[in-house]
Amino acid sequence: MNYPTTLKNLIECYKKLPGVGEKSAERMALATLDLDQEILDKLSDSVKNLKTSIKRCKICNNYCEDEICTICSDKSRNKSTICVVEEPKNIMLFERMGSYNGVYHVLDGLISPLEGINPEQINFKSLIDRIDEEDIKEVIFALKPSIEGETTTLYIKKYLEKKDVKVSKIAHGVPMGADIDYIDTLTLELALENRNEV
Amino acid sequence: MNYPTTLKNLIECYKKLPGVGEKSAERMALATLDLDQEILDKLSDSVKNLKTSIKRCKICNNYCEDEICTICSDKSRNKSTICVVEEPKNIMLFERMGSYNGVYHVLDGLISPLEGINPEQINFKSLIDRIDEEDIKEVIFALKPSIEGETTTLYIKKYLEKKDVKVSKIAHGVPMGADIDYIDTLTLELALENRNEV
Repeated sequence: MNYPTTLKNLIECYKKLPGVGEKSAERMALATLDLDQEILDKLSDSVKNLKTSIKRCKICNNYCEDEICTICSDKSRNKSTICVVEEPKNIMLFERMGSYNGVYHVLDGLISPLEGINPEQINFKSLIDRIDEEDIKEVIFALKPSIEGETTTLYIKKYLEKKDVKVSKIAHGVPMGADIDYIDTLTLELALENRNEV
Repeated sequence: MNYPTTLKNLIECYKKLPGVGEKSAERMALATLDLDQEILDKLSDSVKNLKTSIKRCKICNNYCEDEICTICSDKSRNKSTICVVEEPKNIMLFERMGSYNGVYHVLDGLISPLEGINPEQINFKSLIDRIDEEDIKEVIFALKPSIEGETTTLYIKKYLEKKDVKVSKIAHGVPMGADIDYIDTLTLELALENRNEV
């Protein structure tokens, strides 16, 4: 016995999502069947129009519904500080924190010679253009603490050396609440290197 | 900053699914954005038509696309044995096992005086009708090992006493591969009670 085609299709689709295996997909599909038609319509419409309704901000490449995202069009934000992130979702993390008032720049990838991702394939030229055209005082890198993240930071930093702009990188160290026994040595090394006077 | 409306709606919908919290819903919605439009269309259509395309089998109440489910319409199945389950998804478990060749009956609920679920609210009358009308030799109960499951089994069993039909219940005991140290006492008691000669 197999599930009816519609249910089978739904299970197949759910399985494409991250962290969703065969069993979870089945459970989710069966639960979808129990939802109100109103929610099913909302889900169906959102999915159908997802790609067409979500645009990228012409300035920072963040997700947006219009030409310019809500952050870039917000007059109260400090436009002279740019935080460089890999993906639009990283912006959400900073915004939840609430204390950052600058703007962002989404690279949409990291330079990775191993995977054949060159600087031209990430959204890096537009960052340089922004720095050339606008009055940018500081560029803060908030990329993944990986080889690709470091490579990208260093590559862009080299480009910015000739320009009158402060370049910084978010601190790496022991996360709050973590047990120091379980911290990897590289993080500990960086934490020691970046120690602060108390 | 907030996500665009479509993405927010999608996150809201995903959050209605079992085992999906705020963070997973966000991750899933962002991953949905990266899927091919073809898959999005398939997902959208499946969700939209889910309730209308999935019917219940007129005989056993299993999910189906037509009037009668694939199991009930399968001529090679032994129609004289009925396995009584709570939900259509339980059938899938038995079918995966592959060794059961009888048919099923989906109750769509269990009798629960505490939650105010009476025998009339579950699909129990149609089971009695089947036994009266068809040539049923055995009814196997495969319900949850809970108070509700036991109550339902005993309630239906009482109804079947006057009829010429064998009534059985799947065995409860120590599951294969489980560490006996972690088995609850009730299960162990049942396992001891139902011990088999070796």
